[in-house]
Amino acid sequence: MSRLLDRTGVVIRNFPRADAALIEELGTHGVATIHEAQGRKGLLDPAIRPIQQDHGISGSAVTALVAPGDNWMFHVAVEQCRPGDVLVVATRSPCIDGYFGDLLATSLQARGVRGLVMDAGVRDTRTLREMGFAVWSRAVHAQGTVKETLGSVNVPVICAGQWINPGDIVIADDDGVVVVRREEASFAVEASRKRAAAEEQKRVRLANGELGLDIYNMRPRLAEKGLKYYDSLQDLEGEAEGST
Amino acid sequence: MSRLLDRTGVVIRNFPRADAALIEELGTHGVATIHEAQGRKGLLDPAIRPIQQDHGISGSAVTALVAPGDNWMFHVAVEQCRPGDVLVVATRSPCIDGYFGDLLATSLQARGVRGLVMDAGVRDTRTLREMGFAVWSRAVHAQGTVKETLGSVNVPVICAGQWINPGDIVIADDDGVVVVRREEASFAVEASRKRAAAEEQKRVRLANGELGLDIYNMRPRLAEKGLKYYDSLQDLEGEAEGST
Amino acid sequence: MSRLLDRTGVVIRNFPRADAALIEELGTHGVATIHEAQGRKGLLDPAIRPIQQDHGISGSAVTALVAPGDNWMFHVAVEQCRPGDVLVVATRSPCIDGYFGDLLATSLQARGVRGLVMDAGVRDTRTLREMGFAVWSRAVHAQGTVKETLGSVNVPVICAGQWINPGDIVIADDDGVVVVRREEASFAVEASRKRAAAEEQKRVRLANGELGLDIYNMRPRLAEKGLKYYDSLQDLEGEAEGST
Amino acid sequence: MSRLLDRTGVVIRNFPRADAALIEELGTHGVATIHEAQGRKGLLDPAIRPIQQDHGISGSAVTALVAPGDNWMFHVAVEQCRPGDVLVVATRSPCIDGYFGDLLATSLQARGVRGLVMDAGVRDTRTLREMGFAVWSRAVHAQGTVKETLGSVNVPVICAGQWINPGDIVIADDDGVVVVRREEASFAVEASRKRAAAEEQKRVRLANGELGLDIYNMRPRLAEKGLKYYDSLQDLEGEAEGST
Amino acid sequence: MSRLLDRTGVVIRNFPRADAALIEELGTHGVATIHEAQGRKGLLDPAIRPIQQDHGISGSAVTALVAPGDNWMFHVAVEQCRPGDVLVVATRSPCIDGYFGDLLATSLQARGVRGLVMDAGVRDTRTLREMGFAVWSRAVHAQGTVKETLGSVNVPVICAGQWINPGDIVIADDDGVVVVRREEASFAVEASRKRAAAEEQKRVRLANGELGLDIYNMRPRLAEKGLKYYDSLQDLEGEAEGST
Amino acid sequence: MSRLLDRTGVVIRNFPRADAALIEELGTHGVATIHEAQGRKGLLDPAIRPIQQDHGISGSAVTALVAPGDNWMFHVAVEQCRPGDVLVVATRSPCIDGYFGDLLATSLQARGVRGLVMDAGVRDTRTLREMGFAVWSRAVHAQGTVKETLGSVNVPVICAGQWINPGDIVIADDDGVVVVRREEASFAVEASRKRAAAEEQKRVRLANGELGLDIYNMRPRLAEKGLKYYDSLQDLEGEAEGST
Repeated sequence: MSRLLDRTGVVIRNFPRADAALIEELGTHGVATIHEAQGRKGLLDPAIRPIQQDHGISGSAVTALVAPGDNWMFHVAVEQCRPGDVLVVATRSPCIDGYFGDLLATSLQARGVRGLVMDAGVRDTRTLREMGFAVWSRAVHAQGTVKETLGSVNVPVICAGQWINPGDIVIADDDGVVVVRREEASFAVEASRKRAAAEEQKRVRLANGELGLDIYNMRPRLAEKGLKYYDSLQDLEGEAEGST
Repeated sequence: MSRLLDRTGVVIRNFPRADAALIEELGTHGVATIHEAQGRKGLLDPAIRPIQQDHGISGSAVTALVAPGDNWMFHVAVEQCRPGDVLVVATRSPCIDGYFGDLLATSLQARGVRGLVMDAGVRDTRTLREMGFAVWSRAVHAQGTVKETLGSVNVPVICAGQWINPGDIVIADDDGVVVVRREEASFAVEASRKRAAAEEQKRVRLANGELGLDIYNMRPRLAEKGLKYYDSLQDLEGEAEGST
Repeated sequence: MSRLLDRTGVVIRNFPRADAALIEELGTHGVATIHEAQGRKGLLDPAIRPIQQDHGISGSAVTALVAPGDNWMFHVAVEQCRPGDVLVVATRSPCIDGYFGDLLATSLQARGVRGLVMDAGVRDTRTLREMGFAVWSRAVHAQGTVKETLGSVNVPVICAGQWINPGDIVIADDDGVVVVRREEASFAVEASRKRAAAEEQKRVRLANGELGLDIYNMRPRLAEKGLKYYDSLQDLEGEAEGST
Repeated sequence: MSRLLDRTGVVIRNFPRADAALIEELGTHGVATIHEAQGRKGLLDPAIRPIQQDHGISGSAVTALVAPGDNWMFHVAVEQCRPGDVLVVATRSPCIDGYFGDLLATSLQARGVRGLVMDAGVRDTRTLREMGFAVWSRAVHAQGTVKETLGSVNVPVICAGQWINPGDIVIADDDGVVVVRREEASFAVEASRKRAAAEEQKRVRLANGELGLDIYNMRPRLAEKGLKYYDSLQDLEGEAEGST
Repeated sequence: MSRLLDRTGVVIRNFPRADAALIEELGTHGVATIHEAQGRKGLLDPAIRPIQQDHGISGSAVTALVAPGDNWMFHVAVEQCRPGDVLVVATRSPCIDGYFGDLLATSLQARGVRGLVMDAGVRDTRTLREMGFAVWSRAVHAQGTVKETLGSVNVPVICAGQWINPGDIVIADDDGVVVVRREEASFAVEASRKRAAAEEQKRVRLANGELGLDIYNMRPRLAEKGLKYYDSLQDLEGEAEGST
Repeated sequence: MSRLLDRTGVVIRNFPRADAALIEELGTHGVATIHEAQGRKGLLDPAIRPIQQDHGISGSAVTALVAPGDNWMFHVAVEQCRPGDVLVVATRSPCIDGYFGDLLATSLQARGVRGLVMDAGVRDTRTLREMGFAVWSRAVHAQGTVKETLGSVNVPVICAGQWINPGDIVIADDDGVVVVRREEASFAVEASRKRAAAEEQKRVRLANGELGLDIYNMRPRLAEKGLKYYDSLQDLEGEAEGST
C-alpha cells in the first residue's frame, strides 16, 4: 500500500467503510480515550485545531491530496463522499492558504458529510460555525487558492503526521483528531468502552477524595525509585548543606 | 509616497476618508469575499487574530507607527480619530508586548472608533470583549509598555505585511483583516456585490446537491490534465505493478 | 534557595501560605493590573493560554516538576494540595504532551484546588470546561504520558520563564498568569488597589472624551522630543523634498 | 503493513535491503533531484536540518520509534545495524531533547552506520562533526534523556511526516532528507540519472546565456494565460487609470 | 504607486537604476550601519537568512511576485535582469517551497546578477555555495514547484515586510537585508559614510578601554532617571527589607 | 534572593566570583557533560544558539536586565565586567532586536570579557566572528535599539528559562548554554571529571564494537518490560492477525 502514498492524478471510487454502528459508538468516546484505548497511536499533529468549541464528530475518511495553494481536488472529492463521511485533506507541501470556505461546506453538507480535517487553512469560519459544519485545520486564512494542478482522491495520505487510508475512521473533538484503522474498529470500540468504564469508576472514587496514590498503589514504587518526603524546604536545605 | 513610509516623529492631521456608505457596505461582505473580489490583494498576515468571535467591522484607517515596547503614540493617535475610524498600529520591529488595554479602548470608544488592528500584543481582553470594543492582534500579553520614544501617526505604514495609508478602508472579521485602497472603494464594493450574488446562486445549487464539477464544468479540463478514475485501490495497485 | 531549584526526587509537605483575604483580593484585580502594580514583574510566558474564556482565579501555589512525557508527579502533588491552592507544573525539558485530563481534575477539585497552570499540554478540555476546572497551558494535546520517572513537589521551579516558590500567589485570567511573592502579598494588594482606583478615575474622564494627552500632560514632552504636526501628507512630502 | 505502524515493544531482526550499488548511486544525486525524479514524493519535513555543511549520505534505513525524552531504544537499534545503514528515529510525540551524542555515534560508527536522521534533538554536535558522523535533526539540545520506556526497532514509522519502512533508502544532504521505497530503488536511480543528464544539458545552455523562456518554449503559454509586458510602470499606471 | 502593489500578470521592462558607484559604496557598509544611517527603516523580516556565511552583496532590485508553490515567474524575471541586479521575490501568500535551485542560479549568474532575496524556500544550497551565487531566503526546502499561475515582474512588492520598488537598492549580509530607496541612495551613502567614520573613532577609544558611559556622557542622565549603585546584593536586600 | 529578581534601576558593584581554576576546568568539559554531571539542571532554552561554530567558553556571569528594544544597560554593564567574565543579558519581555554589535564587543573585549549570552538579538555577526568575540543569542537582527529606559546590572535574572546570579558560572558551546551555581563549582568540576573519565572508557569499548546493551547490562530489564524480538515483519504481522 505504501507505493500508493502520494500518488498524484488518480481518483479511487470505492473502498470498504466500517460498520456505521462502530463509527457512531467511537463518536461517543473522546479522542483522548480512543487514543489511549488503541495503544496510543493514530493521533494527528496537535497543530490541527477546531474552529468551533465543545463539538465532536466521527466518520469514515474520504482522503484528498492537494497541491499547495490549489483546491481543485476538493471538487473532485465531493463527488466521492457519502453520508457519514469525513473529508481528510493533506497538502503536497506545507501551506496555510484558505482552501475551504462556505460554498464547499454547503456542497459537502448536501451530501451528508460530517466535517473536514485539513492540514492547511480554511476561511468563512463564522459562516461555517453558523452552518454547523465542523472543521479542524492548521490555520484560518482568507487567502484563496487556484485550480490548476492535479492531486488525488482516496489514495492513502499522510495528514498532519498520520497515515490515513480511505475508509479509516476519523474522530475529532476539542482535544484534536485521531484515526482508527477500519479493520481495527471493533477492537477500538471494545477497548474504548472498557477504558471509559474503568475511568468512570475511578472518577467516582477520586471525586470522593480518594487519592490516585492509593487507588493505583503508587507509594511503594515511588519509594523504591527513591522519592523522599521532607517536612519543609528548610529540612531539605539542611540536608543538602550537610552532604556537600 | 513610499518616501514617507516609516517616517518617525510626525503626525498628519488631515487626509481624505472614503464615502461612509461604501465603508458600510464593505462591512456587510466578509474579508474572504472582498479579498477575492479586489483581485486577491490586501490581506494582512494571518497571525493577526481577533480576540472576540463572530464579529466583524469596517472603517477608515488611522495609522500609527510605534517603537517596540512603547505605546506613547496611541495617545497621540486617539486625538486624530473620528467616528467610524479603525486604528491600525504597526511596530518598528517585532514585539508582542501588551500595548493596548481597556483605558485606551475607553478613550477610542468615546471618539466613535470601531476597533483596533494591531501588529503586536494587547491586554485586558475580557474587559475589551465586555465593552464590545473589537480588536485584532498578534498576541495577548499582559506585559505593559513605556512612553519614551516617538513614533508617528497617519504616515503610511506596513502593518502585518500590508502597506496601509491613512484613509484606506480596513475590514476585519473572524477570517482576518483586509485593506481596500480608498480610491478603489467603489470598485471593491461593486466587485464584492457581484461576487456575493454569484456565490449566493451557487450556494443554492450546491445545497440542492449539484456538484461543483458540473456547475463549473471542470470534468473536461481535469481529464485533459490527466486525472484518472479507478474503481478501487486494487485496480490502481494492479496497474502500478504491471507498469513497473 | 536557588540550590533547591530543579531538585529531583523530593516532596516538601509544608510551607507558609499567604493570608486568604489577600489572595482573594488579588483575584479581584486583573493580571495586567497586578503586573503593573508590583513593578512589572512576575509575568509568565504569554504562550501559556487559558482553555476557557472570561474566567479568572487566584490561589496559593503548589509546585511540581515533571519529566517530559511523564505525569507521575501529579498524583504525588494532589496529596499536598489544600483548598484554595493552584497547582503549578513545570517540565524538566520542553514537552507538549497532554499530562492532565478530567480524572486528575476531579481529584484536584475534590481537594478544593482552584485551577492548574501548566507549562505543557492538557487534554479532555471540553470536560474540564464543563466541570468548571480552570486551566492555563502551553498546548492542548490528546497525547498521554507514562509514569516511570521521578520529579519533585513543592521545590521552587521555573515555570514558563518565572521562578515560583510553593506558597507564592498565582493569579490567572484571560491575559495570562502572574506570580506574586508570598512575602509581597500585602504590598501587591495595596498597590493594585491604588492602581485600580486611579484607573477608574481615568476611565471616567476618558469615557467623557477627555484625551490622555491632556490628562497625563503629554504635549510638552512630546514637543520637546521633537514630535511635529502637519496638516497633510502633502505638507510633509513637500518639506521632505525641500530638505533633500 | 499500516497495522504495524507505531507498534510498541517489538524489534524486527531481518528485512530486505536494497542493492548496495543502487544505494551508492542514489547518493551521487542530490535530495532535490531524487525528490523530483521519483514524482515529488518522499520528502521529510524541512524542519529536519543537518548539523554539518556540504555533506551528503545515502543508506538503508534501520528505523526506531522512541518515547519522548527516552533514548533506551537507541541501544537496541545499534545491534540491528549493519555497514551502510542509516538510523532513522521517530518519537511517539513531539520532543526536542538531546537523545543522541558522541557515545552512541561511536557505537554506530563502529558498526559502519553512515548517519542519523532524527525527528528530535541531538547533542555533542562539535564532536560529531569532528568524528565525521553525519546527523540530520529537528534540534540541537544538551538536555539528556532517560531509559525507562520501551519503543520499537524496525517497525514502519512516520518520521517528520514521511512513512519509512526498514530497508527503505534514505538520502540526506544540505537540502533535507528524502526516502525512496526499497522496491522503487531501480526506478528512482534510473529517473534521477535521466533528470541529472537533462539538467546538465540545460545548465550548459543557461550558462551560455540562453533563457529558460526559450529553452522551455514558455512564451506562448504565458501569453495565452494573459501575461502583459509594459515599457514602464508609468505605462501600466496610465492604463490602470484609464480603465477605472 | 500603491495601486500597482500586488498587480498580477504584468511585466515592466524598464525602470531607473541608481548610480553604480553609489550601489558599490553601499555594499562596503554593513546592513546594520545602513539601517541606522538612513533612520532605522527598510529592514526586512529577520526570518530571511543567508545560506552562506561571511558574505555580503549590494545591487539594484528586480522584483518578482509569485504564486504559492509556483516558480514560473522566475523565468520571466531572468530576462529582465542586468549585470549588478539583485532578484527580489515575494510570494502572494506564505510558502516555503524550494522555488529556486542551481539551474536558475546558473541563468542569473550568466546575466551578471549578484544574488537572490527570496521570501520563500530555496534548494541545491550546497551547489549554490560552490557556484558563489549568494542567496537569502526564509527556508531551505527540496520541495519543487509548478509552472501554472501568473505573477508579475517589476511591480512594487512587499517582501518580508518591506515595500520594494524595482530599482531600489538592496544590501544583504550576515545580519539580514535592507532596502534603500533609489532616490535616497546619495543620502544613504553619505549618512553611512559618516556613521562608519564616527564608529571607527569610537572603536579606537573603546578598544583602548574608555567606557561608553564616558564617551557618550551617559552618567548624568542615568542618575536623573534614578539608577542607583550598591556595593553588594546584601546592601540592596537590606534596603528593600527596611522599606517594606 | 528571589525578592531581587527583576528589580529595576539598580547596579550591584561587587559579588563573589568562583575560583578561576574551577572556571577554567569547567570550560574543558562540554555543556552536555556538565548538565548531566550536576544532575540535569541549569540548561538554558535551546533557542539560544551560537553565532560561531566549534567554539566554547566558560566564565563568571555579570548579569544585566534590559527593557525591550533598549540597550542602555549594556554600557552600564561593561563597567562592571572584569577579565574572565561572561555577560548574561535578559530582557524584561520577549524581544529580538539587535541590541549588541561590534562596538560593544570591542568594549567588552578590551575588559577581557570572554563572550555574551543574550536572550534577544545581536548584529554585526560577521565582524564579531572576525574579532573572535563569542556570542550566543536568540536571534540575529540588524534592528537597532534606543537608550531611554533603565534596567539593572548584577541582580539575579531569569535568562532563557534559567535563574542566573551574578558570579554563577556560565559555560557555552555548540550544544547551548548551562549555568553552574558559584557555590556548586567544585562539585560540578568533580562530577564532570568523573563523568568524562567514565565516558572515555565507554567510548573505547564502543569503538571496539561492544554494544551498549551489554556494557550497561540492559537485556534483562528490556525483557522484563516486555520487549519482544521477531525474525521478520511477517512474523509480527502473523502474530497480530492471530490475536485479533
